[in-house]
Amino acid sequence: MAVDRLLPSSEAADLLDLTRAIADKELAPRVDAHEKAETYPEGLFDMLGAAGLLGLPYPEEFGGGGQPYEVYLQVLEELAARWAAVAVATSVHGLSCYPVAMFGTRAQQERWLPDMLAGELIGGYSLSEPQAGSDAAALTCRADRDGDGYRITGTKAWITHGGKASYYALFVRAAGGISCFLAPGSVDGLTFGPPEQKMGLNAVPTTAAYWDGAFLDGDRLIGREGQGLQIAFSALDSGRLGIAACATGLAQAALDAAVGYANERTAFGRKIVDHQGLGFLLADMAAAVDSARATYVDAARRRDAGRPYSRQASVAKLIATDAAMKVTTDAVQVLGGYGYTRDFPVERYMREAKIMQIFEGTNQIQRLVISRTFATTPA
Amino acid sequence: MAVDRLLPSSEAADLLDLTRAIADKELAPRVDAHEKAETYPEGLFDMLGAAGLLGLPYPEEFGGGGQPYEVYLQVLEELAARWAAVAVATSVHGLSCYPVAMFGTRAQQERWLPDMLAGELIGGYSLSEPQAGSDAAALTCRADRDGDGYRITGTKAWITHGGKASYYALFVRAAGGISCFLAPGSVDGLTFGPPEQKMGLNAVPTTAAYWDGAFLDGDRLIGREGQGLQIAFSALDSGRLGIAACATGLAQAALDAAVGYANERTAFGRKIVDHQGLGFLLADMAAAVDSARATYVDAARRRDAGRPYSRQASVAKLIATDAAMKVTTDAVQVLGGYGYTRDFPVERYMREAKIMQIFEGTNQIQRLVISRTFATTPA
Amino acid sequence: MAVDRLLPSSEAADLLDLTRAIADKELAPRVDAHEKAETYPEGLFDMLGAAGLLGLPYPEEFGGGGQPYEVYLQVLEELAARWAAVAVATSVHGLSCYPVAMFGTRAQQERWLPDMLAGELIGGYSLSEPQAGSDAAALTCRADRDGDGYRITGTKAWITHGGKASYYALFVRAAGGISCFLAPGSVDGLTFGPPEQKMGLNAVPTTAAYWDGAFLDGDRLIGREGQGLQIAFSALDSGRLGIAACATGLAQAALDAAVGYANERTAFGRKIVDHQGLGFLLADMAAAVDSARATYVDAARRRDAGRPYSRQASVAKLIATDAAMKVTTDAVQVLGGYGYTRDFPVERYMREAKIMQIFEGTNQIQRLVISRTFATTPA
Amino acid sequence: MAVDRLLPSSEAADLLDLTRAIADKELAPRVDAHEKAETYPEGLFDMLGAAGLLGLPYPEEFGGGGQPYEVYLQVLEELAARWAAVAVATSVHGLSCYPVAMFGTRAQQERWLPDMLAGELIGGYSLSEPQAGSDAAALTCRADRDGDGYRITGTKAWITHGGKASYYALFVRAAGGISCFLAPGSVDGLTFGPPEQKMGLNAVPTTAAYWDGAFLDGDRLIGREGQGLQIAFSALDSGRLGIAACATGLAQAALDAAVGYANERTAFGRKIVDHQGLGFLLADMAAAVDSARATYVDAARRRDAGRPYSRQASVAKLIATDAAMKVTTDAVQVLGGYGYTRDFPVERYMREAKIMQIFEGTNQIQRLVISRTFATTPA
Repeated sequence: MAVDRLLPSSEAADLLDLTRAIADKELAPRVDAHEKAETYPEGLFDMLGAAGLLGLPYPEEFGGGGQPYEVYLQVLEELAARWAAVAVATSVHGLSCYPVAMFGTRAQQERWLPDMLAGELIGGYSLSEPQAGSDAAALTCRADRDGDGYRITGTKAWITHGGKASYYALFVRAAGGISCFLAPGSVDGLTFGPPEQKMGLNAVPTTAAYWDGAFLDGDRLIGREGQGLQIAFSALDSGRLGIAACATGLAQAALDAAVGYANERTAFGRKIVDHQGLGFLLADMAAAVDSARATYVDAARRRDAGRPYSRQASVAKLIATDAAMKVTTDAVQVLGGYGYTRDFPVERYMREAKIMQIFEGTNQIQRLVISRTFATTPA
Repeated sequence: MAVDRLLPSSEAADLLDLTRAIADKELAPRVDAHEKAETYPEGLFDMLGAAGLLGLPYPEEFGGGGQPYEVYLQVLEELAARWAAVAVATSVHGLSCYPVAMFGTRAQQERWLPDMLAGELIGGYSLSEPQAGSDAAALTCRADRDGDGYRITGTKAWITHGGKASYYALFVRAAGGISCFLAPGSVDGLTFGPPEQKMGLNAVPTTAAYWDGAFLDGDRLIGREGQGLQIAFSALDSGRLGIAACATGLAQAALDAAVGYANERTAFGRKIVDHQGLGFLLADMAAAVDSARATYVDAARRRDAGRPYSRQASVAKLIATDAAMKVTTDAVQVLGGYGYTRDFPVERYMREAKIMQIFEGTNQIQRLVISRTFATTPA
Repeated sequence: MAVDRLLPSSEAADLLDLTRAIADKELAPRVDAHEKAETYPEGLFDMLGAAGLLGLPYPEEFGGGGQPYEVYLQVLEELAARWAAVAVATSVHGLSCYPVAMFGTRAQQERWLPDMLAGELIGGYSLSEPQAGSDAAALTCRADRDGDGYRITGTKAWITHGGKASYYALFVRAAGGISCFLAPGSVDGLTFGPPEQKMGLNAVPTTAAYWDGAFLDGDRLIGREGQGLQIAFSALDSGRLGIAACATGLAQAALDAAVGYANERTAFGRKIVDHQGLGFLLADMAAAVDSARATYVDAARRRDAGRPYSRQASVAKLIATDAAMKVTTDAVQVLGGYGYTRDFPVERYMREAKIMQIFEGTNQIQRLVISRTFATTPA
Repeated sequence: MAVDRLLPSSEAADLLDLTRAIADKELAPRVDAHEKAETYPEGLFDMLGAAGLLGLPYPEEFGGGGQPYEVYLQVLEELAARWAAVAVATSVHGLSCYPVAMFGTRAQQERWLPDMLAGELIGGYSLSEPQAGSDAAALTCRADRDGDGYRITGTKAWITHGGKASYYALFVRAAGGISCFLAPGSVDGLTFGPPEQKMGLNAVPTTAAYWDGAFLDGDRLIGREGQGLQIAFSALDSGRLGIAACATGLAQAALDAAVGYANERTAFGRKIVDHQGLGFLLADMAAAVDSARATYVDAARRRDAGRPYSRQASVAKLIATDAAMKVTTDAVQVLGGYGYTRDFPVERYMREAKIMQIFEGTNQIQRLVISRTFATTPA
């Protein structure tokens, strides 16, 4: 049953209908096989790009959809309800466009954005390192000046779409401080590790990247040297909204599966949906999903209105991913022994939900971001 | 620090500013004395009426504010952040206008609404009975036909503003089934019990009402005989949104008090707001408040858009009142021993929060309402 | 219905029976009036002392009961189920005997313990100061050497039984560091503030104490100068078990009240205990109570066996007081509107539960104590 | 670091030491490979039987260990901390011995118990059916009288060790009602389904069993015809304690892994164990583990003392398995991205924890069992 969405325009409603149609036709039938076999869905992102779903929140001038975040995020949510790994990679792709779109020169934007927003170039986001996840200031991967460009040396980690993406928004330490580059996905001196053996989201690889003095042209620097953390954290505010939307979609899918099962399974002489104890559990799950959605939509509307939204993005990420963990875990409970098997999708949802609480800033980092807004003087 | 609100118009922003000014000037200085002494704030509702705050969501044609629920509820929230009992009574007054405004004849509307919306008549809502709280079908108080009118016999319970209100939206059992009346607050054969000795919200009385054959004119019947439960439940959808807003305001006040204290108190050599363990607690409290607000605003926007919102109202009531209970309890914790004394308002907030989970449908009833939307066939 | 207790001996079972009889006869009938009027139950502690309940865990040699902590704590729990303030004061009295019993000289023990354990002297515990609650190292109240004794100057806070007790275990800063004294309750230069206006536990006063150079004989120093924090923290390990037991008793009382009501109240045609949604809530409450009891009894058995139990005492305090807060809040929910009134005891239980999470080390301090056991090197 | 256990005897301490030694030497090195490859650890249960660990709570007279449940369960806990699937199968084996040991005739006991308790025969427990999990009264698999014996027809489901066990405690519907049989693991007319594709516990198969008129001798009936549910539910009280112990061991392993990582990983310049926000999370995890253990040990001590313990067994199962779900999920959080990979065991712990909330009575069923103890008259 389609989610009853409050959307700002009929165009947005049409976009959501289109998204649902694509998700039902192209994602839903393939997710199970790819996630089980841990194989990459070749061609899928091309299709999403062709459908216009990979540049939604960016300017139409460069081929983007010109959609408000309020709408874009609900598209992500629908994708995530069918295939979390694809939705997350779509969100990360959006994140990878952010530095050029917001901090790039006009020339950089004209050179790269059209292909990025059309999905002809798929992007990754490379900030983390093995010893520096949430603590971006501890980055050691570095860019050394070499003539007109830079040589990159060091190891990056936890790259969604690693080895598959066409380019990476790369954050490394240069003379002027942490700096952002738009790095090509293939260059001499760049190799990728094997896919991490993850608990879930197995159809899209996550890898390390090994930079061994690879050369980047100077015009791949986005913004100024030393502006990298500003760019990275600004991008993450948007990225966290993306994860909040993905988590909400995942939770919605789990709720739908639980409700469906509860309407079919009988125990003690009647459908389990009619046992009040289970009904109350479903109600709490539904309240968590509705509330998660309302929370991220509110944050997105603030972003769309040009209002501060950093704290709200952290709140949305915290609330929505905790909701997803709870709701998916409870969905397995509703299905009982069946839920514990791979014959039903809920055990996969539960495995997928866990990473939502971790990436793009663990929920501990979100709490740190929020709590810092309360200190009247710097901590 | 004023809440950063996303409002639909500059008129709404002005209204919120006005509300804050009134709340700061007229409510905040008086709340403590009245709540401790358990005395009614005579004249306060007249003042709110004169300021235009008692008819906000109703048509301008009858003197109402013509405001969307999205805005009206945020006004309630600001009132509740200063004085929960006054905000709840304001919400109940709004609820008491609902039957006439939505189900009354044109003549009834013209006769009563202007005074009600101007606050010259203050209303109560009388649905519960001693043995029938959430179970409205078990009502026994009855209306017997007598000439052109009805004689009312029985006992009602838990009436906010009982004995103080000018009139009551009264639900009793008539020949045609549960029926709604607009009953005067003073009539032969109507007496009120003493104020309930409550844990909180003591400045506005809650009483029982004893109907001993009091006579009501026939034109005080709102809608048809037998239409009462439809009216009552429809009104409650709106009323639950009011309670959700009140609970959010209460939680916001508790958060503000906790943040203020955490910025002043030091322990182990630094301000407690800078201890990460406490900072994370404040962050969780803030996330709960933000999420509660987003949830009720989303439900209100659906109501304003003419969309179904009954389930969302129940979700908002459940989420916001549970948030208020948690946040107020944690606020006492943040203030420690001081929080446990009446020298600070947080212990009052905690006492006030509890009733929010109970009235206008306990949170168990909300779960029942939500879970029933999941059963594909009637339970 | 009496709790089904697993006790180590038939003597212990007899002691629990005696306790229940006294609690039912002497506490239960008086608690309501004293808590509402905020009046001290004169003579009550004399009665408890005469019954042998004020020296249970101390040696028979000095008139104590020689009971294991496992038994003593269950006695406290039974008292708390009838009257939390009395049980807490009893626990604090036990705490006040600890320094002399464990660190005093033989002469000090012979001089004071018999009267303390018989309840002829009632004790308070005076560690906190207005600006130093959990952070004992920040104490400023001081003891200055004067001839054979000390002069005490400064302000202490949050003293249970303040102004009523016969003596106080007093912790102040001396030349050699924080030091423990057994101070008389009445001495020139010692005055007490008015009772704190608390949210609950109103029958036993909590006050500040103002020391204005009052003179204490040198033989009132317990242990060495500078040994005070060691004594205080060691005592608190025991004290926290006492609070865990009190919290469990309070939670049990709330559960019993909720179960009783749920077996009488009907809704939708049957007793509410038979509505599964409410039944599950009661089950979660019961699980919390049983688990809290098992947790403190386990810690007590470790203490009785001479095993380390400091971490377990903090765990027990954390688990039991959080359980009490949850269970009492839910008990009000079970009783609905009635639960919100002072006609039923559950609203009082809820108000009383809150302080349990705060005193004798806030639950944040308990988490700190526990987490420090995990750091392999000092933090 | 070994858990600090309170044990009733030095013999028990020796047994726990032996268990830890075996678990460290035989289980820990093999678990990862078998769980990943989903292969059965051939010979492992023979080894456990030879070590005397498969008959611990049963009489020495038949070769059992004669150990109190308090001790037996802690042995299970240690096994589960290394390999949950093996511990669960061990618990189920113990469950499978229960009908013969408690309801069998002396002849049946002498015939079967010695081999069962020595682990020469490994047992499964076959109560569930595809349409009857928690609702045992809905069983349809049946036993039809045929000469001196019975023919069994129908489908059973969710059998731990299905197809691998030497025998099954089988519950089917006979003329006299649900009846218990000790069925051989291999007999004409009995086939097993393929292993369920589970989320975890993959080294020990769970299968369906298809009975197609297989013949059982009449002396394989345990107890009387119609006594099956009494036997089954009585066995489940013990079985739930076993699951509570397994869940506690799993949670302890997760806590240990999290603490170990938190002492090695640094962020923002210091070990993450020293960040208070994370320290508090670890403290809550530890409190949950300690409390879960205390709760099941308390229930076991009641069983050992011959006291009622059915409610306490349900409480222990509920508390311990919810704790395991929470603690394992949080352990992944502590390890962050690393925790989400199969390079660390915590993701496996989290997958394993989920089934604990489901089998041997879902936690909803436990709540039902507990809540029924509160109804003064039958529901």
